[in-house]
Amino acid sequence: MGNITIKMLAKELNLSTAAVSKALRDSHEISERTKTRVLELAAALNYVPHPYAGSLREKKSNTIAVVIPEVADSFFSLALNGIEAVAIENGYHALIYLTHERFEREKTILKDLESGRVDGVIMSVTMKTNTFDHIKTLNKAVPMVFFDRVCEEIDTAKITTNDEECGYQATQHLIDRGCKKIAILSISESLSINAKRIQGYQQALLDSGRQCEASYIIDYGDDPTENFERLRKLFQTADRPDGIVATVSKMTTDIYLVCMELGLRIPQDLKVVSFSNDSTVAILNPSLTTITQPAFEMGKSAASILFKALKNKYLVLSEESMVIPSELIVRNSTSSAV
Amino acid sequence: MGNITIKMLAKELNLSTAAVSKALRDSHEISERTKTRVLELAAALNYVPHPYAGSLREKKSNTIAVVIPEVADSFFSLALNGIEAVAIENGYHALIYLTHERFEREKTILKDLESGRVDGVIMSVTMKTNTFDHIKTLNKAVPMVFFDRVCEEIDTAKITTNDEECGYQATQHLIDRGCKKIAILSISESLSINAKRIQGYQQALLDSGRQCEASYIIDYGDDPTENFERLRKLFQTADRPDGIVATVSKMTTDIYLVCMELGLRIPQDLKVVSFSNDSTVAILNPSLTTITQPAFEMGKSAASILFKALKNKYLVLSEESMVIPSELIVRNSTSSAV
Repeated sequence: MGNITIKMLAKELNLSTAAVSKALRDSHEISERTKTRVLELAAALNYVPHPYAGSLREKKSNTIAVVIPEVADSFFSLALNGIEAVAIENGYHALIYLTHERFEREKTILKDLESGRVDGVIMSVTMKTNTFDHIKTLNKAVPMVFFDRVCEEIDTAKITTNDEECGYQATQHLIDRGCKKIAILSISESLSINAKRIQGYQQALLDSGRQCEASYIIDYGDDPTENFERLRKLFQTADRPDGIVATVSKMTTDIYLVCMELGLRIPQDLKVVSFSNDSTVAILNPSLTTITQPAFEMGKSAASILFKALKNKYLVLSEESMVIPSELIVRNSTSSAV
Repeated sequence: MGNITIKMLAKELNLSTAAVSKALRDSHEISERTKTRVLELAAALNYVPHPYAGSLREKKSNTIAVVIPEVADSFFSLALNGIEAVAIENGYHALIYLTHERFEREKTILKDLESGRVDGVIMSVTMKTNTFDHIKTLNKAVPMVFFDRVCEEIDTAKITTNDEECGYQATQHLIDRGCKKIAILSISESLSINAKRIQGYQQALLDSGRQCEASYIIDYGDDPTENFERLRKLFQTADRPDGIVATVSKMTTDIYLVCMELGLRIPQDLKVVSFSNDSTVAILNPSLTTITQPAFEMGKSAASILFKALKNKYLVLSEESMVIPSELIVRNSTSSAV
């Protein structure tokens, strides 16, 4: 771990450390000849300035933080690729923090970020985030941009997709394909995107003159065994649904597996629409009808707006919010031909 | 953006900045009464010490770097979860850097890490990494642990799975299921794990008295259109394979889609084994026989060994290498019942 320091360069060159430091910063106080000597030795010895020292001086870390629940998820991993692409273009690093859906961990991470470790933050909240003081405090210290799981209470840029419309569209599609009893899996009551998807679902049912039954809105939490059990129960009731909307991608595997176990056929016995960006949707058995979100574009837009704010401190972030529409892609899991 | 500084605390309390700084560090030179006053005001104003200043003093960043090709991949996202779990336990942050399989980007990242930004590095190289000076240089500055795509040239801990055996096992399974012409998709000639999987494939063919034909070892690069075209050509030749080994998960979707397009049936016309950790493998059409790697465990082990090294600087990292076996899970894509 023998890092080269300014002191070592100074000793080698028989100069003061101040002179070496000034030469490295290209100060006018130092002669060109001395600068050349310093720079040549620094290059030869592979001297790298300590990044934290530089950032204390410049008050810039050239780093942004991305705070997201998870990367083992096609939506977030694609969004992250979009964020990274823009960060690289701007000569920045993206520090990636995973909350794993834990509210306490989100608070700890945000507290840590208050201290100036990064120049800006891009964030998607946990499914359990239901108070916002920790976000408000950080938002005073560094510019923040939200994407997907936004925080309505914070006055800043929010990059979302048309969640309510998508909930409506998915449900309407199931109605069009002849479904009478449509269920929806709900990931969290406190997430605004989830609430909007549910609202769209409810509105589509109302607009077609149907009742919204609370028993068809199913909680889907973070305990895999409970989720599976809840689906198994739902699919075994006399009044089992003949159509279902999965509000996040990972629910799909459970729906398909429970159907296989119970001998229910998709789409004959149950039609399925899922919010998903998985690359495998076309090769599932049967292929899956999806609401495909513009994940990469959402990440890219969130990062572009954050860098706009970093370059122009007078930018009003809340005026930069965007809604990028998702797309319904019809495949065999909602086919009406039986 | 209105951060509270030591100077502001000092002014408010009518103390010197040095006294405030000492009080915050719990110095014996400062009276308990003054310490209490300082800490109370610091708490009230939500003062957070600048992390870089602290790390210059302590020479510790409490951060590790994870350098990987991609997160939109089930293996790496699960491994990352394993690394993160251990980092959190140790009170560390994991800084995640994505190379996107670009060698130049890998070099830039490693150069940046030389400067002491992190205390240790966990890494999986790009598929194009074929020189190693950038890694050797970083390895002199901070402890490094490799996982999965290791770098044989560097003398440190390497966490791998039994790649050669898995290549053998996958191929043997296809032979057992009656395949006569077995192809393998190869992701990169320079990656040691890829070379080992191919060696295992070749050995299995030799052991069953068969020829290894070079035309059945197919390059699978990072251009999606070319990959698709190459598969389409292979599957249209008179001598098309009746069995195929996919050495990484993302190849599966292409194989299935080309078969759908050409009207080839899996497993009747082509049997498929894939290295994969995707959660959807059981619900594919047909369900996919896999070599399932211990992704989470590999990440966890890599991180545990790195933290062991951070706590004990006399640890000989190269003696900590581990091989964690993968598992062949047989599903319908290699079924012999037709």
